[in-house]
Amino acid sequence: MIYLDHAAATPVDKRVLQAMEPCFTEDFFNPSAAYLPAKKMASEYESAKGVIAHAIGAKTSDLIITAGATEANNLAFTAISLDESRQSLSSPASQDSVGHPPHSCHPSVLYLVTEHDSVRRVAERYGGQAIDVLLNGLIDLSDLRKKITDETELISVSLANNELGTIQPIAEVSQIIREVKLDRMKRGLKRQLLLHSDASQALNLLDINVARLGVDLLTLNAAKVYGPKGVGALYVSHDVRLHPLTFGGGQENGLRSGTENVPGVIGFAKAILLTKEHLNGNRKKYAAWKKSFLSELSDYELINDRHSLDNFVVVCFKGLDAERLVFLLEEREVYVATGAACAASKGVRSHALKAIGLTDEQIAGSLRITFGETNDEAQIHEAAKIINEVVAGERERINKSAAAKKELAND
Amino acid sequence: MIYLDHAAATPVDKRVLQAMEPCFTEDFFNPSAAYLPAKKMASEYESAKGVIAHAIGAKTSDLIITAGATEANNLAFTAISLDESRQSLSSPASQDSVGHPPHSCHPSVLYLVTEHDSVRRVAERYGGQAIDVLLNGLIDLSDLRKKITDETELISVSLANNELGTIQPIAEVSQIIREVKLDRMKRGLKRQLLLHSDASQALNLLDINVARLGVDLLTLNAAKVYGPKGVGALYVSHDVRLHPLTFGGGQENGLRSGTENVPGVIGFAKAILLTKEHLNGNRKKYAAWKKSFLSELSDYELINDRHSLDNFVVVCFKGLDAERLVFLLEEREVYVATGAACAASKGVRSHALKAIGLTDEQIAGSLRITFGETNDEAQIHEAAKIINEVVAGERERINKSAAAKKELAND
Repeated sequence: MIYLDHAAATPVDKRVLQAMEPCFTEDFFNPSAAYLPAKKMASEYESAKGVIAHAIGAKTSDLIITAGATEANNLAFTAISLDESRQSLSSPASQDSVGHPPHSCHPSVLYLVTEHDSVRRVAERYGGQAIDVLLNGLIDLSDLRKKITDETELISVSLANNELGTIQPIAEVSQIIREVKLDRMKRGLKRQLLLHSDASQALNLLDINVARLGVDLLTLNAAKVYGPKGVGALYVSHDVRLHPLTFGGGQENGLRSGTENVPGVIGFAKAILLTKEHLNGNRKKYAAWKKSFLSELSDYELINDRHSLDNFVVVCFKGLDAERLVFLLEEREVYVATGAACAASKGVRSHALKAIGLTDEQIAGSLRITFGETNDEAQIHEAAKIINEVVAGERERINKSAAAKKELAND
Repeated sequence: MIYLDHAAATPVDKRVLQAMEPCFTEDFFNPSAAYLPAKKMASEYESAKGVIAHAIGAKTSDLIITAGATEANNLAFTAISLDESRQSLSSPASQDSVGHPPHSCHPSVLYLVTEHDSVRRVAERYGGQAIDVLLNGLIDLSDLRKKITDETELISVSLANNELGTIQPIAEVSQIIREVKLDRMKRGLKRQLLLHSDASQALNLLDINVARLGVDLLTLNAAKVYGPKGVGALYVSHDVRLHPLTFGGGQENGLRSGTENVPGVIGFAKAILLTKEHLNGNRKKYAAWKKSFLSELSDYELINDRHSLDNFVVVCFKGLDAERLVFLLEEREVYVATGAACAASKGVRSHALKAIGLTDEQIAGSLRITFGETNDEAQIHEAAKIINEVVAGERERINKSAAAKKELAND
């Protein structure tokens, strides 16, 4: 088996599982209980949160643990102040048309057009407006400048895109935001302007520091860094006020109630430690693999350019149907994707590929290949070879069928 | 160690962990991906959901997986139709005063006064009104009848209380609801009337069947039945319309987005199977333990009566401070609780004990002892012995101190 879809899911690292195991069976206590073993769990949980926070240059108190990146992204948008946009969010009209922006309210949210569904869908519900990307997938900073109004409160730009791996210049975005905030201050305007970034994909290969990036809110996902599924986190700058999505026992500073997922968070901490440890080595390794893979692959068009994560390869095989390729490659035990898993399962064509100006034919023929820890160098060579064979076979089949049709027509 | 706080947390059963393990490291695929191993995961995930659903007499499609009971309880309340109460929920006034009912709107929600925080807090935000309990902890059905108005849409009554273990007569509640619905129908009123029940604690020892109970919504929690933390489920009758709390990839029929927690759900399914298998045996076992425990315990007042789960013992040691007892018992490696863990950690006195009419002194002296799978019969005898010793020691200390004070006063 050659698994090349690490952007969709990563296995839990054995060392991560090892770190989690005692919390399932022995140290299972409720961290809120009053006796010592439970208090020990509470303190281990806090330490684990501290490890995760430290990995992005933040403090334990800046972190809210969630059940994954989707919840963290949704929670980030509660930072929007309670004005007309939040009111209209819960009006019957907008509730009945999930996914359609409530046109009646001022757009106070901007989001990159290539964002993951969990950002797009929420942003749309707040009447969000999309920021364009350039043909290389990078944010169009002039479009961003143009779209920021005095009403804009939140801008959401992922650190690395989940379909293309494009690494966005977040520090440049935050510089623009600083300028706007300075200008607002001069004019006596008090509306906040926050920068949120979904770092789910980036956490794997980029050295993330919230201060250096200049973000107010940052989404993390354990499941993309060889940690457990169902665990994520939202970094929240201390001066940002969020509103809980759910109510209950008041855990996570009242922002996310429910008994703490202790094994999950301890696993996440171990995973992030391992990731940080191998960051530079992995980046070099994947970059080398990408280079050799692309040199061995034939008859393709490279879709994602150098501004992307080293483990992301998006290639188009013009005239071919990528969904058929996924199926044919599966028969050879090579597993690749056509785009984001959750979109692919619904037969939705990639909106990210569309946003960077690809034609329908190009989109139809595009594969997303993401390297990871389950791979070794031999697999990368082997994968290129198998893909070449499958692609050649498909081209031959199509050519033959076209020739047969032509012959038939000539008859 | 004698752990007697199974209502707060249960360890993951070794067989549950065994069932989960392959999904961490080998079968880790994203269920939404297009290739076969991922589709296999999707189908295993659905099967696991089917097992959970079947255990409560429901269908797979009736179940929405959540990150725990708190989220499930919160999701249940989204069934309330989008009228004035939902609008006022997101108005600045109610958002700024979390926990205080938005007085401006019609009360359309009723909840039992002894409910867990995750029901109470949400209900309060919808302007909910509390239903009284009788002195034995059972719902006051006449108070329920009195409080149901034409505006009432949702009634939330837990199947078994988390502090007292009180088993509520849900079928009787649903009979009352049926009568009200019939009356509404006759009068041409179209407002829905739904019954929600939090079955987190009950799942362990009661044979739950949604049709027999007559509930429209039912909350389940893996972490209370020797399954993993961070996994819960909401049963939703097919004619009830919910609204998602978060938005994204559209998993769980669009009601709960985010990559599926496959190991968690497979663990939950295994846990619920094991629970069902040992239901009758465990009930008898715990009932016998409770009887011998109470016969061996001295100098106490029994707080929870026969209408409670067999593994729940709530006892009051009058004149003593239960928090001090928890601490002293901890030194003897016996772990008990004063009430719900999440409330206890905030130093909040039990609202359930208050609701059943206990005096402040009684509440201050009350311990919650919950048996479970980590115990054996010898531990129960040993626990009674240790508690007797600790209680006797405390009484002696207090008497001595009182005598000393008296002597001092007589001097």
